[in-house]
Amino acid sequence: MLSRGVKQLGRLRPCSQGILPSFACRGFASPTLPELTKDRYPHVKRGEFAKLDQNHLKFFRDLLGENRVLNDPSDCEIYNVDWNRNVRGYSDCVLKPKTTQEVSQILSFCNEHRLAVSPQGGNTGLVGGSVPVFDEIVLSLSLMNNIISVDDTSGILVCEGGCVLEYLDEQLANHGLMMPLDLGAKGSCQIGGNVSTNAGGLRLLRYGNLQGNVLGIEAVKANGEILDCLSALKKDNTGFHLKHLFIGSEGALGVVTKVAIQCPAKPQAVNLAFLGVKSFDNILTTFRRAKRELGEILSSFEMIDEQSIGAVMGHLKVKSPIDNHPFYVLFETQGSNDAHDQEKIHRFLENIMGDGTVLDGTVTNEPSKMRAIWDLRERIAEAFLHDGYVFKYDITLPLEKFYSIVDVMRERLGSDVLRCCGYGHIGDGNIHFTVTTKEFSKDILKRIEPFVYEFTSELKGSISAEHGIGFRKPQYIHYSKSDAAIHLMKELKKLMDPKGILNPYKVLP
Amino acid sequence: MLSRGVKQLGRLRPCSQGILPSFACRGFASPTLPELTKDRYPHVKRGEFAKLDQNHLKFFRDLLGENRVLNDPSDCEIYNVDWNRNVRGYSDCVLKPKTTQEVSQILSFCNEHRLAVSPQGGNTGLVGGSVPVFDEIVLSLSLMNNIISVDDTSGILVCEGGCVLEYLDEQLANHGLMMPLDLGAKGSCQIGGNVSTNAGGLRLLRYGNLQGNVLGIEAVKANGEILDCLSALKKDNTGFHLKHLFIGSEGALGVVTKVAIQCPAKPQAVNLAFLGVKSFDNILTTFRRAKRELGEILSSFEMIDEQSIGAVMGHLKVKSPIDNHPFYVLFETQGSNDAHDQEKIHRFLENIMGDGTVLDGTVTNEPSKMRAIWDLRERIAEAFLHDGYVFKYDITLPLEKFYSIVDVMRERLGSDVLRCCGYGHIGDGNIHFTVTTKEFSKDILKRIEPFVYEFTSELKGSISAEHGIGFRKPQYIHYSKSDAAIHLMKELKKLMDPKGILNPYKVLP
Repeated sequence: MLSRGVKQLGRLRPCSQGILPSFACRGFASPTLPELTKDRYPHVKRGEFAKLDQNHLKFFRDLLGENRVLNDPSDCEIYNVDWNRNVRGYSDCVLKPKTTQEVSQILSFCNEHRLAVSPQGGNTGLVGGSVPVFDEIVLSLSLMNNIISVDDTSGILVCEGGCVLEYLDEQLANHGLMMPLDLGAKGSCQIGGNVSTNAGGLRLLRYGNLQGNVLGIEAVKANGEILDCLSALKKDNTGFHLKHLFIGSEGALGVVTKVAIQCPAKPQAVNLAFLGVKSFDNILTTFRRAKRELGEILSSFEMIDEQSIGAVMGHLKVKSPIDNHPFYVLFETQGSNDAHDQEKIHRFLENIMGDGTVLDGTVTNEPSKMRAIWDLRERIAEAFLHDGYVFKYDITLPLEKFYSIVDVMRERLGSDVLRCCGYGHIGDGNIHFTVTTKEFSKDILKRIEPFVYEFTSELKGSISAEHGIGFRKPQYIHYSKSDAAIHLMKELKKLMDPKGILNPYKVLP
Repeated sequence: MLSRGVKQLGRLRPCSQGILPSFACRGFASPTLPELTKDRYPHVKRGEFAKLDQNHLKFFRDLLGENRVLNDPSDCEIYNVDWNRNVRGYSDCVLKPKTTQEVSQILSFCNEHRLAVSPQGGNTGLVGGSVPVFDEIVLSLSLMNNIISVDDTSGILVCEGGCVLEYLDEQLANHGLMMPLDLGAKGSCQIGGNVSTNAGGLRLLRYGNLQGNVLGIEAVKANGEILDCLSALKKDNTGFHLKHLFIGSEGALGVVTKVAIQCPAKPQAVNLAFLGVKSFDNILTTFRRAKRELGEILSSFEMIDEQSIGAVMGHLKVKSPIDNHPFYVLFETQGSNDAHDQEKIHRFLENIMGDGTVLDGTVTNEPSKMRAIWDLRERIAEAFLHDGYVFKYDITLPLEKFYSIVDVMRERLGSDVLRCCGYGHIGDGNIHFTVTTKEFSKDILKRIEPFVYEFTSELKGSISAEHGIGFRKPQYIHYSKSDAAIHLMKELKKLMDPKGILNPYKVLP
């Protein structure tokens, strides 16, 4: 059972697409079972929660039946370890409700008996948010995986929180629709988890964020109360918009049991271009003009620097279809008419190459060639691991300063590191800043942190672009949020979950 | 001064485009000054708030100077009356801060002294949410109208809450950008008010809602605390997403002083089509296929029934470019290449007219002809007034049932009314259901209400699609929201504004 992380690796695309699902994407990851979190992070103390006893188990078994209450430590292990094998709890109780009513009864009981709960979707999170820190009961949504309705005309999907993202996308294809989000972890991650973590991903530039696309939510509060805000309507201005309490709050304010999402039509044409440019400024110029000239069909716009692509080409022998350049751009279009899209792309490329902004480029709509180009982008993180040790940061910076973190860090680190580079989603201002060394070095770590967070904070950037705070980053949240904001978050937590049973030790400092 | 409502009428497009700015759009409106709200709605009692005295005024004058504290009843009058002249407060204090700090000091003082406050943007709201009910101090954001930054590359605008929507759109045009929302009231409404009311409008189908487009908010809480969530980043997952407390909460949880919004590129091509069809089912088929075949360029999709267009053609002598039909569709495209867009539109129309789904149609990109077609849609509400009395409801229904309210109501009302009809935003499921009579009739009112809300509720629709709850609808909110949701809203209100000084008597029952 413990090899699940490895076995599923093949199905998942690497981190470049959003939520990181694999070892390959984390510098600190290891294929062996991690230390228990309580030992690795001894400063975090277990809260004043009850310890699971036979009476509690009897209640759960009476409610769910024997099969949906896991109590054997070996059965529970995969629910205790995160995808990165970075953190590990020691819960010996995993509950698998099939209905919102059951979730409600579980939480009501846990709240009454002060039992801490760790809600879990596909367990593909990257900040230790989806597994127990100590012995919290795991509330797995996996069996709540029914599609409730798909409205072909409005494009509105209503489903349970445990539906796997890729499954939803496949089912929507039968209706000529697609999910408005696409993540590397799509084969495992669940829509309830996506919503709870406000997952981003590759399609955000074109199809927008979950805050715009989620129309309704049914959630269960810590006290078991069911909150029905499952409006499947594009417009509904009747009171405060409570659904947003649950989008991106990482399960700390409630458990998302159902969602209504608006889904765009599946594109009839997809094209992919790969370009070489001389400077980061040229990338910005290209992006600015692509937004204007490709406008409505632009669906992705990514950048890669020379050191990043060098890792893929060197370590993984992936070939580039164009010559070497200091920077690369990969952009994708999705549209309803291939001839029109190609004409737009060719005209755009003629102009932008004609004036020297872009030095070199190729464009294709052949699936195998598109796959090969995507590999150059998506396998970067995997390639870095071959250097030895990877220090990786997922931050948002204002676009004009997007690449400045790399320049500044190169000055600070000099030749003491193997690589200091960056790549990421230009369209979202989200850079994956990366440093590699032969092996882990405390000295290098100290020269990177907390400087990288201070630098991000000074530029009013975000220290977590899309991965959330989880267990790993609460102590850094003040770099992105004011004291007043953190205080209000704590007040909200107290209001929604006065006993603090939902996903304790996470999100808030 | 009292003619402001009338004088500004000419600059505003009618209600069909979103928030209703004019008399013409409300059945109950009258050109004379309305009764005081305290007299018209005697069941609403003034809260236990302090009454304004000279000491309070001295504090405000010391803070803002004489000119930015209005105290003369005639100066205050336009701030007391809503656009529809439906409600009227009797505040004799209007404050006009220029900075967030001033807003903070005002609210801190009012909170300490238990003075009730009515925050006000452009005062174009339609549910009595933006004017005092009794003698609440009016906090006008009009002088906080500075653009702070426009990032050409990311398309992110940061500005103060008092900026007028049309002004922002004009300024963005210099950067090749546009606002992602378009409202009838654009010449007067302010972005802070738009955000506070989660305004919808005509572009929502294409550019999404404010919940997706607003990236950051600076707001001042009831106690004067400034909450800086003004992240101008597309991705920022650091803690609970507090900005959503202020989007659509109608000023009851805080005052929006600054916003960051992502803005799309201005389209280079716009086309407008006007079609005649036989049945409502044919409208849905046309919409479904337009979404697929026009996909990325579709920017608006509206429907009009025969009785609605009959009012415009009969009363206002607006001419239709096509023959009479039971139903009409108006759709607009916005794109980056006019030749491509026209080719897509013509192919779509050939197909959909070829198989008889659409009986008749015309398409144009000439501004004057587009204006003439838009008039057929936008002047409907104005035309209804010529019938006599108008009962008007702004509701969202599931698309398949969009028109059912008209069919059901025709059965209920029979020939006792002049018109019973509907038109609206198919793309958003938002119908403007309308009944007209020669004069006001209590009997007809009773046959419409509360049935129309019960009907909407049974179909899980929304009793307020885009106008909000304000002062006029708190007693109906339970038709769209559960008791648990309303209870949580009340708890949030208590948390954010324990003394209840912000926009009292509104939103919540």
